[in-house]
Amino acid sequence: MINVIKIGGNVIDNPAALAAFLKDFAQMPGKKILVHGGGKEATRLSESMGLKTTMIEGRRVTDLDTLHLVTMVYAGLINKRIVAMLQGFGCDAVGLTGADGRAITASRRKPNPIDYGYVGDIDPAMVNDRFIASLLAEGSVPVFCAICYDGHDGLLNCNADSVACAMAIGASRIEETHLTFCFEKPGVMRDINDNSSVIPVITKETFPALKESGIIAQGMIPKIKNALDAAAMGVASVRICKAENLNNDIGTVVK
Amino acid sequence: MINVIKIGGNVIDNPAALAAFLKDFAQMPGKKILVHGGGKEATRLSESMGLKTTMIEGRRVTDLDTLHLVTMVYAGLINKRIVAMLQGFGCDAVGLTGADGRAITASRRKPNPIDYGYVGDIDPAMVNDRFIASLLAEGSVPVFCAICYDGHDGLLNCNADSVACAMAIGASRIEETHLTFCFEKPGVMRDINDNSSVIPVITKETFPALKESGIIAQGMIPKIKNALDAAAMGVASVRICKAENLNNDIGTVVK
Repeated sequence: MINVIKIGGNVIDNPAALAAFLKDFAQMPGKKILVHGGGKEATRLSESMGLKTTMIEGRRVTDLDTLHLVTMVYAGLINKRIVAMLQGFGCDAVGLTGADGRAITASRRKPNPIDYGYVGDIDPAMVNDRFIASLLAEGSVPVFCAICYDGHDGLLNCNADSVACAMAIGASRIEETHLTFCFEKPGVMRDINDNSSVIPVITKETFPALKESGIIAQGMIPKIKNALDAAAMGVASVRICKAENLNNDIGTVVK
Repeated sequence: MINVIKIGGNVIDNPAALAAFLKDFAQMPGKKILVHGGGKEATRLSESMGLKTTMIEGRRVTDLDTLHLVTMVYAGLINKRIVAMLQGFGCDAVGLTGADGRAITASRRKPNPIDYGYVGDIDPAMVNDRFIASLLAEGSVPVFCAICYDGHDGLLNCNADSVACAMAIGASRIEETHLTFCFEKPGVMRDINDNSSVIPVITKETFPALKESGIIAQGMIPKIKNALDAAAMGVASVRICKAENLNNDIGTVVK
């Protein structure tokens, strides 16, 4: 059994929450893979360097300077900080991008109608499960940021939820795999202000109505779509939960 | 047989020279490990971020901000650029720091008489040859920057020549290992302005006189000391040569 865990940017930005989460992650038994998001450090550094941010329809364009910046922050600063902390908790982490061992090859998003620059989309078939399997067999714990290989000689900035999904689908070709998205909320909630309103189960049958009614909105929509895709493509279970509930069986199950 | 190759900062700063070197490295047959230096990007970024540089007796102090900076630039930007370029040349690179797989644990340099901050020294016994051997057995090509694990939950900035030496000594415990230092000069020269003055062989017997006469001076002294240590500690051969001569058998042999 393999556990693929995604940890989001809000937890990464909070040193105490991050340390608590990594301690819990280190204690999970068995084979496991961590995928982490970015947090606010890239934005802070970008501002301190005077980099221009270009937004199109509310989304950031990854020009070459921005690709360099996120490679530094995600693959360097955050990834290696997490690896060193995990080693401190006795977890034999190996920090990777998709270029390392050709672990994840992404396709650069087509420049029409909008050119988002060095942004990649991931086909789960392009996860190198042979490389992942060999690391897991040695007792290593792969830790991925969302920088992926472009299939030529460069890198692409990808969405960390999509990386986690693709990795879980790829890992399912090795053995039974469970995917958990950890973030700052207790799960997918009917009322964002009511922590007791967690929806226990979302299925492809119940999702459309939840979306139409506005209960599931904005950034949660692609997350649930990713989760439903993973469940449909062989991942044994998909759960969305609060980071501190990683090792408790609560949150929202997507199936 | 394992080849450990060190590539220096001057080559890394020159995109055409770096691409040519990596193409040659990709073509080397057999098991191999690359260790790379830093180049000037960390200094440039440091200036653009307005970081204060503290020098004591001509040496840079690695405070926490500087450690974060070199982790971003060496482990993020440069390491992953090299990995993606090597993948483009068909070489299955895996970019690592010493924290990944506990590959290299360093000891923080004692703060007396001078506190250089987050700087580490490496004992070749602290190279995790089991992890390195498992990567090499899978056909992976480890690519190391000089950021190492502190043995607790953090990182230390180390000297890339020392990392290459320790890695070669560690790899010698797996199988016969050869160490090559590639830089911008054709070898160790009697006259820095005369490319035909390369000293073909340096031994522990000839080194003291070369040092006393000033022929070997400044930064070359620790490099030769490192090379002599490697030769004395089981590395089958040690060579210092121009990057473009990687696959030619010329330069200075240290034994």
